[in-house]
Parts: sequence; C-alpha cells; structure tokens
Amino acid sequence: MPTIGIYSTVEELAQGVLRGEVRAIARAITLVESRSEARLELLERLFPHTGHAFKVGITGAPGAGKSTLTYQLIPHFKAQGYRVGVLAVDPTSPFSGGAILGDRVRFDETLDGVYIRSLASRGSIGGLSRGVPPAIRVLEAAGFNLILIETVGAGQLQVDVRFVADTVILVLVPESGDVIQAMKAGIIEIADIYVVNKADREGASRMRIDLRNALELGGKPKGWNPPILLTEAIHGKGIDELAKFIHEHKQYQQQSGDWDKRRLQQIDWELRSLIHDALEQQARNVASQLFSPSALQNVLQRTENPYPILRAWLASQPN
Amino acid sequence: MPTIGIYSTVEELAQGVLRGEVRAIARAITLVESRSEARLELLERLFPHTGHAFKVGITGAPGAGKSTLTYQLIPHFKAQGYRVGVLAVDPTSPFSGGAILGDRVRFDETLDGVYIRSLASRGSIGGLSRGVPPAIRVLEAAGFNLILIETVGAGQLQVDVRFVADTVILVLVPESGDVIQAMKAGIIEIADIYVVNKADREGASRMRIDLRNALELGGKPKGWNPPILLTEAIHGKGIDELAKFIHEHKQYQQQSGDWDKRRLQQIDWELRSLIHDALEQQARNVASQLFSPSALQNVLQRTENPYPILRAWLASQPN
Repeated sequence: MPTIGIYSTVEELAQGVLRGEVRAIARAITLVESRSEARLELLERLFPHTGHAFKVGITGAPGAGKSTLTYQLIPHFKAQGYRVGVLAVDPTSPFSGGAILGDRVRFDETLDGVYIRSLASRGSIGGLSRGVPPAIRVLEAAGFNLILIETVGAGQLQVDVRFVADTVILVLVPESGDVIQAMKAGIIEIADIYVVNKADREGASRMRIDLRNALELGGKPKGWNPPILLTEAIHGKGIDELAKFIHEHKQYQQQSGDWDKRRLQQIDWELRSLIHDALEQQARNVASQLFSPSALQNVLQRTENPYPILRAWLASQPN
Repeated sequence: MPTIGIYSTVEELAQGVLRGEVRAIARAITLVESRSEARLELLERLFPHTGHAFKVGITGAPGAGKSTLTYQLIPHFKAQGYRVGVLAVDPTSPFSGGAILGDRVRFDETLDGVYIRSLASRGSIGGLSRGVPPAIRVLEAAGFNLILIETVGAGQLQVDVRFVADTVILVLVPESGDVIQAMKAGIIEIADIYVVNKADREGASRMRIDLRNALELGGKPKGWNPPILLTEAIHGKGIDELAKFIHEHKQYQQQSGDWDKRRLQQIDWELRSLIHDALEQQARNVASQLFSPSALQNVLQRTENPYPILRAWLASQPN
C-alpha cells in the first residue's frame, strides 16, 4: 500500500492519526481520498473516535472572500478552546496553495496548530469532493473538534455542503449579481448564516434588504431565522458578530433537536457517496465491456445502434 | 407511460419528433430526461436520424452574458441556413424563463423557428445535465442541425461541456476575477474560443493580454490556436467576428480529423453517463438496503460501525 508511506500497516497509520501526528494525518487523508480498499479499513478503525467535531461550511463564488473570512475566524475558535482544522475544496482558495491576505506567510500565529488541507474537487458529487466526509473523520480522530470547510460552487452545486456541515455560511459580495438570480439558482435557501462581504462597496445594504425579502417570501421561518451580516473580512470587520452567530446556531440546533436530525442526514449522505463511488468505477468498467473501441467507431458511423445493448444490460441488472 | 402524453406509443412519439412537431419534441425531451425505461426505446428508434448537428457550447459564470451572446448568434446561424435549437442548462438563464435582453418578448423574430428548452441541472455529472446528450439526439431527429448549449459552471465543473459540444466558447467578463484564478480552477484550457464580454468595461484589453499569456505558458499550441475576442453582446458588437471563428473552428476540425476524434469522446461520455445513471439509482437502493433508519441511528450513536458492512458489500460486487 504505497499511499501509507512509512506506516507499514493500516493499524500503525491509525495509531499515528490518533496520536495526532501531522505526517500520519496527511497520509491518512490521502488514503481516504483514494479508492483503495484500505481506506475503508482505516475508517472502520477510526470510526469510534469520530463524530464529535463541529463542522462549519463556508461557501460562495471564487473571489467572494471565503478564505479571508476563514482566516479571520480561526483566532475566535482557538480562543474558545477549539482545535481547528481547515479543509479547502475550492481550487482557487489561497489555502490550496496561494497566499492568504496578500503576502502573509502561510504559517503565521493565527495558523499555528491549525491543520490545513486542500482536497481535490474532482470526483465530486454536486461540487463537493467525496473526500470531505472521510477527511473529516480523520481530523476528528486526530483530535480536531472544529472543522472549517471552504467550498466553491455555483447554483445547485453548492447545496451539498449542507450534507457535511452543521452550520453553512454563504458569502456573497455586492457585485455578485442580484438576489433574484441567486434564488433561481437555488442557492438562497441553503445557508444558516448569510454574509455580505466587502460591505464597504456600493450596494451592500441594498443587497441585505433584498436578501431578507427573498428569504421571507414564503413567510417568516419557523425555528432558526438566518441572520444576514455585513462584513469586511480583509479589515476584520464584522467577524466578532459572525463568530457569535455561529456559536448561537450551534446552541440553537442542540436545543431544538436539529443537531441529530442533520447529523443523520450527514451519515446517510456519507454512506451513499461511498456506495456511489464504487458504482461509478463499475460504470467505467461496464462501459468498456459493453462498447469496445471498434464498437464505438461503429456507433459513430451509425452502423451500430447502442441503445439495444444498453437496454439488455439494464434488464440484466438487479431491479 | 404518462410522460408521452397524447402519443400512445413510443413509435408514435418518434414519428412526431421526426415530423418536427413541437409538442412531440417537448414530450420526447421530457421522456429522455426521465429515468423511464421507455427513454432508451425512443433513443433506439431515433438513433439512425441523429449525429449530424453542429453543437456549440457557451459556458461561463452567471451574469457573464451567455444568453445575450446566444441570442445575438442565432440570426447569423439562421442566415447560414441552419435550423437552430437552444438547450439552456443554466438555471439563471433568461432562456430558462426570464426575459432576454431586458424586455423583449420571448418569441420575437430572432427566435422564430428556434426551439428553446431549459434542462434541469439536477442529476448532473460535473455540472452538466445528463439530459443534454439525449436531448441533443431528439433535436437532431427533429431536423435541427445547429444546437447551442448554454451551461453555467465553476471550476472543474465547466469542463464537461467539452463532452457534448463540438466548439466550446468560454465567456468571461473583466470583473470575473483574474486570469490566474481561472487557470487554477482549470477552466482556462477547456475552450476553443474565448470571449471577453462587456468589453467596454475597464480591464477588458488587459484581460485579453493576460489570457493570451496564460494560454501560451506551455508554448504555442499545435493545431488550433484559440482566438480571444472582445464583445459587447448587449450592443451586438463583436458578434460577426465570433460567428466567423465558430465557422472556422468547425472547418478546422473537419480538415484536421479532430471532428471524429471529439465525436468519439462524446459518444463514449453519453453511453457512460447512461450507465452511471442506472448505477446511481442502484446506489440509492443499496444504501437503504444496507442501512435501515434504525441502523443509521445506531451509526449516529456510534453503537454500529458502518464500514464493515460497506466492505462486505463491496467484496460482493463484480470486480
């Protein structure tokens, strides 16, 4: 198992993760992102030590300021005693290799003790890397209890962050197009907290009003009423308030019973995505078995009709 | 088969499509978007009459002006004798229900004879609705020979439009973030033609230069060298040139042999996505068979470890 590196068995790797060794965490995440069968062995071993972290999803278009917000939130969570991990699924995120806040170095005081990992967005369902749920389990087993998940997306594709995060923050900027467009794209209803970042720019207050109106189109929500905050992440403005609302949302969920309901959905999604993953590999295999390169040529020339072949295959499948 | 409507058999529906009846086309696309087994019957029947259309993909972020460009291109294609169909996968596209170019009515002269259909982006692979390839076949069978496919996407998710379109146009706007970000997101290499729309805004020329530099980082391309055009779609500026380059790209592909190579990839992708689709339905069934609601509760309480169950299921699967 080359992905395990210096750890000669899955058990040794698991031990390293449980001791919180950075090298073991890195190897373990690489393993669970892969399709190696050993990943399930590792997850089985780590499972009893997982499930306890508070997971905060931060989503929005590239350039909305998600990374800066994430960066600014970290000291708040540290001050509350959390051990913080960051998973960046956005390929344009500074956490995935660029510079945060301009020229600051990568390992400054804020980031000290924070484990940061970027995940491939390839092989994703709905824009969310399938590596996210197992990577969360690895971080939990290593003792991280607050995990920030930064994801980029557009339209429906952002929706899936709900299935991994306990609290979802949608970051908008005044320029990001009007609220009506966002509604049509189905991204309006997904968040627990809305942030209009770069609030010094024109149109921020207007956007907040439009957003509030849009959210209340169907009447005032029962239960949690998502706040809409104005921030200027680059100057640290509005971050205290955001951290406060994140904490309140957690408390609200725990008191209302939403916490368990949502976590049940998360587990369901995680297991389904593992099954989906296995079946996707099968799809590749089935396709190349059903259609050889020369058969594909014939389909291209229309001398072979592919649909009877597909129908026969489908008929041979369970239900 | 309720989705067939007034057509009592698949054969009747197919006949209606082949006669170009708008009502039959609408029913047929609804059917092929569905998971009904009858969709493969219909596709089998239509298959001999398909494969001839020139398919142009127009992709970019919401608000970049894709719909306006599409709208402006239509008269050019009509003048060249094409019968034009439009498939809009962007949920924010005016073609999906809003108003094109402000207040113009939906069925104006430009759109006369043009078949427009919006497709759900749900159930998508990589942001591309799986309904696209079969909907293309329906339009081809109905006699449309130029199909414009408008898709929204971010990052990797835009890439899949390559697998349905012969020519891909990526629409950027000067504000859409810098070229470096787009490169990181992997969207730079996908297009055959680049359009910097809203070129009257600041930064358009600069963006063109940056884009050219980015594209030539790995040396000048062999073969087709993607042009970068400046347009102001809303004023019709630059559309002639764009139409000219679309035509040139088609000719280039036909002369170079890229045409067939690319169409082979398209067929491969279409067949794989149909197989994938069937397997995905199975994933849902498998998940609920493996994990009952009470088993999920136990997983949530960590009294049941789900991974041994998944491993056993995987071991029971073909390869």
